[in-house]
Amino acid sequence: MIALDDLLVMTLAPDRDGAARRVVIQLMPPPFAQPWVANIRTLARARWWDGLAVVRVQDNYVAQWGDPNGEDAARAKPLPAGMRPTDKADYAVNGDAKDWQRFKDLTVPRGDLVAGYTAFEAGWPVAAEGTPDSAWRWPVHCYGMVGVGRNFAPDRGTGAELYTVIGHAPRHLDRNIALVGRVVEGIEHLSSLPRGTGALGFYEKAEQRVPITSTRLASDLPAGEQPRFEYLATDSASFLRYAEARANRRDPFFIRPAGGADICNIPVPVRRAR
Amino acid sequence: MIALDDLLVMTLAPDRDGAARRVVIQLMPPPFAQPWVANIRTLARARWWDGLAVVRVQDNYVAQWGDPNGEDAARAKPLPAGMRPTDKADYAVNGDAKDWQRFKDLTVPRGDLVAGYTAFEAGWPVAAEGTPDSAWRWPVHCYGMVGVGRNFAPDRGTGAELYTVIGHAPRHLDRNIALVGRVVEGIEHLSSLPRGTGALGFYEKAEQRVPITSTRLASDLPAGEQPRFEYLATDSASFLRYAEARANRRDPFFIRPAGGADICNIPVPVRRAR
Repeated sequence: MIALDDLLVMTLAPDRDGAARRVVIQLMPPPFAQPWVANIRTLARARWWDGLAVVRVQDNYVAQWGDPNGEDAARAKPLPAGMRPTDKADYAVNGDAKDWQRFKDLTVPRGDLVAGYTAFEAGWPVAAEGTPDSAWRWPVHCYGMVGVGRNFAPDRGTGAELYTVIGHAPRHLDRNIALVGRVVEGIEHLSSLPRGTGALGFYEKAEQRVPITSTRLASDLPAGEQPRFEYLATDSASFLRYAEARANRRDPFFIRPAGGADICNIPVPVRRAR
Repeated sequence: MIALDDLLVMTLAPDRDGAARRVVIQLMPPPFAQPWVANIRTLARARWWDGLAVVRVQDNYVAQWGDPNGEDAARAKPLPAGMRPTDKADYAVNGDAKDWQRFKDLTVPRGDLVAGYTAFEAGWPVAAEGTPDSAWRWPVHCYGMVGVGRNFAPDRGTGAELYTVIGHAPRHLDRNIALVGRVVEGIEHLSSLPRGTGALGFYEKAEQRVPITSTRLASDLPAGEQPRFEYLATDSASFLRYAEARANRRDPFFIRPAGGADICNIPVPVRRAR
């Protein structure tokens, strides 16, 4: 079961047909990205995103939301009290992890094109370098992962500007941007938005932006509205079978199993809990 | 310059604001997929797709178009005369290629997770097994690539039912489906469509489908309407520099170059010719 403090519920304005649009994001657990995740909880509790908007949708890349005036110091919405400083040292982690065993077990996928290898740690896709007992490791920019927008380095972003991947995994962003979570429900409300026609897919007109009605931690919602999700433990035998089946599809449609899989083609199963 | 016979121009019904929607597809050159490509030219010349529709949009997977009644033999639209048989043997090719040199030269990317290695041949991303002088090779399911829908194997599809990739590269489809081209303009008209809520992302109601107004080879359009595109030759020094720059981003945004790249993160540059 995913803790309610680890679920962020973002409600967008209804679509043109009046249908509700809700996006649920799972925040990343320790040891990853905790300064940014703490800031995101602070921002949600301050209702900071309410009234802001989805400002950018770039095809085969990202949908991004936050303060439309964020680049203009005179007009930017002030951040709430209690925001933590962030550091690029936290883009990757080293040393023992409570879910170390989970990290070692997986044999599919074995390799990677932009890191030593990839695996899953505590339910999340990670890339790593070094031997398993002393590896540096970091989360991977797969489809649906949520990251922290920032300006030019050494800016690390606060967590106020967020994006999600809506195209082929932009792995060049790994360790260059903090990943803080993943969309577990409703990504179609972001991935099917009209693409922005400005530079980098920013919307050129204010009326093209999609208003954010509210963003709340699930723990701050009324009990009856709290979403309950669970994920398949990545150290389980079930997950190993699932990953192997993703690498070697054996249903009648397939003629030739691939014999391997990119980690981003093995999404961790997350579902509504009953 | 891309030959006019290799460009397919699909016009969808205008969007809700009355804006035109046009998708331009480059068909794959020899030695790849030529039986299906020949059928696609036959279908376009017969105006077979006119009045049919986009029937399926599955998030992080594909947008698919063709005959909404294609599964129902009694109601399916008859195919035109002159369609060629297709064979799964044509999912991959072997032997000499006129652009062999182009295929060998590239050092980025070097490896692959689901094949021996990947490279570019005559402007297209390919995966391969074996040594470069006797390799089996086949096109890769990157974002925007266009493939031939089919039913369960041994069906190979005719080319009448097409899809394009709108998510993370589904590499498990390589060598299981014929790839016949790529979208070179207007993919946003497919990737930003509402996701279908039926099984596999099919639209559940006829009125949700997006009508296809026409599909023509560029060579069959009036001279003034023929689109002209060119692509960066993949055996050029410029392309090698481009691929290396994709693997190691050096603009001020980046803190840490990746040192490698998935072939699907090195899209071949295609642009309007002046």
